[in-house]
Amino acid sequence: MSAFEYTQIAREKNLDELKEFLSLPTISTLSAHRADVQRGAEWVAENLRAMGMEHVEIMPTGKGKGQPLVYADWLHADDAPTILVYGHFDVQPVDPLNEWRTPPFEPTIVDDTIYARGASDMKAQTLAVMKALEALLKTDSLRVNIKVIIEGEEEVGSPNLASFLRAHKRKLECDVALNCDSQMASKDLPSIVYGLRGLCYFEIWVQGPAQDLHSGLFGGSIHNPAQVLCDLISGMHDAHGRVTLPHFYDDVRVLSDDERAELARLPVTNESWANAAGVSELWGEKNFSVVERTGARPTLEVNGLYAGFIGEGSKTVLPAKAMAKISTRLVPNQRPEKIKQQFENYMRMHAPNTVRWSVELLASGEPVLLNRESRFVRAAKDALQETFGVAPVFQLLGWSVPVTNSLNDELGVDVVVMGFGLADDGTHGPNEHFYLPNFYRGIEGYARFFEHAAKISN
Amino acid sequence: MSAFEYTQIAREKNLDELKEFLSLPTISTLSAHRADVQRGAEWVAENLRAMGMEHVEIMPTGKGKGQPLVYADWLHADDAPTILVYGHFDVQPVDPLNEWRTPPFEPTIVDDTIYARGASDMKAQTLAVMKALEALLKTDSLRVNIKVIIEGEEEVGSPNLASFLRAHKRKLECDVALNCDSQMASKDLPSIVYGLRGLCYFEIWVQGPAQDLHSGLFGGSIHNPAQVLCDLISGMHDAHGRVTLPHFYDDVRVLSDDERAELARLPVTNESWANAAGVSELWGEKNFSVVERTGARPTLEVNGLYAGFIGEGSKTVLPAKAMAKISTRLVPNQRPEKIKQQFENYMRMHAPNTVRWSVELLASGEPVLLNRESRFVRAAKDALQETFGVAPVFQLLGWSVPVTNSLNDELGVDVVVMGFGLADDGTHGPNEHFYLPNFYRGIEGYARFFEHAAKISN
Repeated sequence: MSAFEYTQIAREKNLDELKEFLSLPTISTLSAHRADVQRGAEWVAENLRAMGMEHVEIMPTGKGKGQPLVYADWLHADDAPTILVYGHFDVQPVDPLNEWRTPPFEPTIVDDTIYARGASDMKAQTLAVMKALEALLKTDSLRVNIKVIIEGEEEVGSPNLASFLRAHKRKLECDVALNCDSQMASKDLPSIVYGLRGLCYFEIWVQGPAQDLHSGLFGGSIHNPAQVLCDLISGMHDAHGRVTLPHFYDDVRVLSDDERAELARLPVTNESWANAAGVSELWGEKNFSVVERTGARPTLEVNGLYAGFIGEGSKTVLPAKAMAKISTRLVPNQRPEKIKQQFENYMRMHAPNTVRWSVELLASGEPVLLNRESRFVRAAKDALQETFGVAPVFQLLGWSVPVTNSLNDELGVDVVVMGFGLADDGTHGPNEHFYLPNFYRGIEGYARFFEHAAKISN
Repeated sequence: MSAFEYTQIAREKNLDELKEFLSLPTISTLSAHRADVQRGAEWVAENLRAMGMEHVEIMPTGKGKGQPLVYADWLHADDAPTILVYGHFDVQPVDPLNEWRTPPFEPTIVDDTIYARGASDMKAQTLAVMKALEALLKTDSLRVNIKVIIEGEEEVGSPNLASFLRAHKRKLECDVALNCDSQMASKDLPSIVYGLRGLCYFEIWVQGPAQDLHSGLFGGSIHNPAQVLCDLISGMHDAHGRVTLPHFYDDVRVLSDDERAELARLPVTNESWANAAGVSELWGEKNFSVVERTGARPTLEVNGLYAGFIGEGSKTVLPAKAMAKISTRLVPNQRPEKIKQQFENYMRMHAPNTVRWSVELLASGEPVLLNRESRFVRAAKDALQETFGVAPVFQLLGWSVPVTNSLNDELGVDVVVMGFGLADDGTHGPNEHFYLPNFYRGIEGYARFFEHAAKISN
């Protein structure tokens, strides 16, 4: 039996496993779900063990304070290349829960689509690469050496991964890394990602009075910290949609004309993008296309706002403090450390003396630009072309997968970024979903990649 | 035994009753506490009945949808004036609960101060006037006719009180109303309030994308509704602390020089006010004193802010919507209906086309200016002078007690506003408290007021 025959026969089993995987509430940012994340690691480890991967191990990270990571390998392909496969099994929180049409951890299939938290980001893809390995292993046709790391804290910014890679550099030695946390250009058009945006995620607190006050008694005499916070946030963009942090754009790489032309080939129109987002009108930095604005340009977004009374009804309170979660997306050659300084400088320049404030960096990641010319990228291109019948497009992704640069920087290898999610899968929001045909094509695509990679000589 | 001897003997009993009253969680804005509010009404009714008040009745409001109101009367003083006494037994919510040093519904006495939600706003005062009546009734020395209404929804803006007064106009007929929901100028300096600010309390929603989006995927291409909300709120004040709603100041009554001089007599300095609020520096409209800014000038305050992810850790979400609770304080001759229009006009003028928005008016109340020359005000002045040994000051309060204008407008009588709270009692915030000596002096002050009022001939 060939690996491809195996994947055909295993379709139903693979789908059942996907449902089981998706039913685990592996929310890494909430400490209440710590045991669930551990269960997720055990589930992944057991699955890898059952397919014949070796040295399967649940490894602690961050001196035991981080979330567990699952390691496994299969190293019987002699001189063939060694590929380090990366995925994650943790997911985002589910609030606002009341906007889910089906429970987030009860995977539900409607037509060709499966709904669950983590379906697209990224359990379907993590499982697809695992099932590709299973197909090759079960049919004795795996011809490359494989090392697998599936982590449990990507959704909090992989805070311990770089140090993990550094600590286990020898163990993780490889010729190339495959990062499966990625997406396609559209339902039937695969892509290879050659750049990812970096991240700085801040939490700001503005403190006004010592405690909440009666807004009738003190209103008009005290600088309301919620108002100050709004002033500060409002000032972070100018009228042209540009971020006003001092020197924010200084290090931004300028796109070449060729690159802009290539990005323009992506099947994204203003209309399709507005539809995907559910807005009537787009917004953003002037003189850049939506593909450029979301992939090649840095941004600053408010992720959360809180002050005072937000329950039912009215409470006439002048809040003591106000909070915002704000993240910037970075592009080459911006550096998180500099952005943090710029953010703090902005606060120093603009926060009034009537309040106190604090800024905490909750997560950060470097932007990354990958080698588009490597032999492994060519192998990926061939694999995708054969699977989908069309040549993949090269793409810049808007989000951060800190592991991509960690793999690049810490292990000193090229990274192939190839995944099967879609832009409108609702990742991080309610009703996240995944288009199931691309779960099966993903398995095939990864298997073909391993086959093509086997032909590359060291 | 005189009424004053009675109050001396009853001190301990009265304090026990205060603790019992304060232990009832009569939070009117939260539907989960509806039964507690009903229990509060029953407690008040039973107390009034026990002291000898007559026709004690728990009356529904708002066609049964409002919170209950307690009515009682004692009408055996023949030709002497009839005084309608007003108080409320409902309280504000208690969040942020973790900032309370003692449980909000377990009254705790430290030195001369009692800590509990509602201690100052306004159960101590409601009970003080009740205990004054008790002392006079129990010693056969009540010489005025009394009607009492104690309502259960002042903290949500008394939405059904005006219609209640209108519906029961005959039953509530009186010569003057006494509103006990008020405060002193300082611990030992009583005051009579002659003006109260009005209120418009809004809830705004700004809706961006159809649902929460991944901020990496869509960031830079969609107008973030939290950012739009901040822009809108930021624009609601100018650099001089003035509210920018169109025509907001058009109807504001200008203070006379005499009045400004009188207000300047209040023992409030910038330093004492900053200390009371727990800030290092005050803020507000230029060219007005803090007393003027908080009593005689209109304001706009953010009472609550919400958008996106506000839990522990980081979630890279571009929120679908953002909410603010915003209230304006109004002064004569501003009108809530006009302010609502101005607020909506502001939103129409400034909200961008990239979002949808809604404004809901959650509560409103007219500002009020009372007659300072009436004989009943003189009676109050004498009563306070005798009780405290110092002449009361005349004061403009910053907050809204919609009943004051309702009493004024619906019943067509003067209102005497006399109470015993303090500016730094922490009303509406955590660790609300009341200075107990003024509970006992309040009982005495109200009793003396009823005695002086008895000398006024109709």
